[in-house]
Amino acid sequence: MNIKMVLSYDGTKFLGWQESSDGMTIEEAVRKALETIYQRPTILQAASRTDRGVHAEGQVVSFHAEKRLDLSQVKVSLNQLLPKTIRIQTVEEERETFHPTLSATGKEYHYHLCLSPIQSPFRRHFSWHIHTPLDVKLMQEGALSLIGTHDFATFCNSCNPKPKDTIRTLTRLDIFEMGETLHFEVEGNHFLYKMVRNLVGTLVYLGMGKLTLDEVKRLIEKKDRTLAGITAPAHGLTLKRVLYR
Amino acid sequence: MNIKMVLSYDGTKFLGWQESSDGMTIEEAVRKALETIYQRPTILQAASRTDRGVHAEGQVVSFHAEKRLDLSQVKVSLNQLLPKTIRIQTVEEERETFHPTLSATGKEYHYHLCLSPIQSPFRRHFSWHIHTPLDVKLMQEGALSLIGTHDFATFCNSCNPKPKDTIRTLTRLDIFEMGETLHFEVEGNHFLYKMVRNLVGTLVYLGMGKLTLDEVKRLIEKKDRTLAGITAPAHGLTLKRVLYR
Repeated sequence: MNIKMVLSYDGTKFLGWQESSDGMTIEEAVRKALETIYQRPTILQAASRTDRGVHAEGQVVSFHAEKRLDLSQVKVSLNQLLPKTIRIQTVEEERETFHPTLSATGKEYHYHLCLSPIQSPFRRHFSWHIHTPLDVKLMQEGALSLIGTHDFATFCNSCNPKPKDTIRTLTRLDIFEMGETLHFEVEGNHFLYKMVRNLVGTLVYLGMGKLTLDEVKRLIEKKDRTLAGITAPAHGLTLKRVLYR
Repeated sequence: MNIKMVLSYDGTKFLGWQESSDGMTIEEAVRKALETIYQRPTILQAASRTDRGVHAEGQVVSFHAEKRLDLSQVKVSLNQLLPKTIRIQTVEEERETFHPTLSATGKEYHYHLCLSPIQSPFRRHFSWHIHTPLDVKLMQEGALSLIGTHDFATFCNSCNPKPKDTIRTLTRLDIFEMGETLHFEVEGNHFLYKMVRNLVGTLVYLGMGKLTLDEVKRLIEKKDRTLAGITAPAHGLTLKRVLYR
């Protein structure tokens, strides 16, 4: 049977989703817990291979199991076996053809900036501290100019394997202030490597005056990563949810 | 000169405010940073000796300094020397008679419960996870019955030295739901040892049906700690601010 799980994690102390010989990853922790329960080697598929330090509220993962166990009990056992930094929200059977990435129609990411002069000790693992003033209205205008279906090569860090193409659809990039936090809500069909963090970093550069609105508007046609802003740090980013039909 | 500071801290990894030979405390970290800056032994006074695991958004601390340094620079230096779990918000000169506890007219504490079936990995150090249903309306009624000037002996854990008396004024005990979080906002003139956590634990017992509203209403006159609910865990508690005239 094909099993789909939704999980949340605080990515602070992990090397990211994907297994690595360098240290503990979320994938390794979840796989080992499943192998303890099912007593079989298990292969996980994940909707998003979140980077080191990135968090998730609604990561979607699937695996195949031969044994038919009570899935509500599997959820309880997983949460007992896993560290409290990883919580399994749901475990349910899916159709055989379900795949967390291939079946997804989109993803929603959130990014947080902490704008207070002194960073809150409570938000230090969950927000990027920017203590210079930002022109939020200008950032919102810049964000609007990036929405749509474009070649996002400018916002894609080099990675291996290279993506077949860099055309993606960005459906939403909302920026709003809540107290001393600046929230980014980013939704699209698929995302390129570090694309969300590059979009945020570029809009922060715009807000700081390091890039003009005109420059930001022309970034997409330039297809040159070096012209955009920096990659925003990982710890401000959260995979909010994965969208399916 | 008498110097007042307001500071925030994530209490998770500290043994509480007060210095101890058992491990790192917030007082020790702040004192050592001040001694590095002033090159003099320094004694700190704090408005609240928060327990191990308790957090603060607005702890108030004072110390005497002989050297007259630029206090905005002292703040910058302190934040450079201190771990990111402790942040100095303000540093300013106060009148000689100012004392963070004795001059205070009251304190405000917040307590958070996480009510979702699966605890959020992001709130695990900042909320008490209660996964049984709570009758919040009943808890709000119970809270109202505790407001006022009473002998709060029932809500005071034994401590050394014993307080001269256990009469205190509780001016506010608001409970409200925000999504899957239950917020407690507690304000009073002074608080007894573990009083806020005992009030919260008792109201949670009321919400669970382990105590009746009548029992809660009669707790104050009984002056018997063993009749009230448990002490709510430290990590849900935050010292929000200290009030001065």
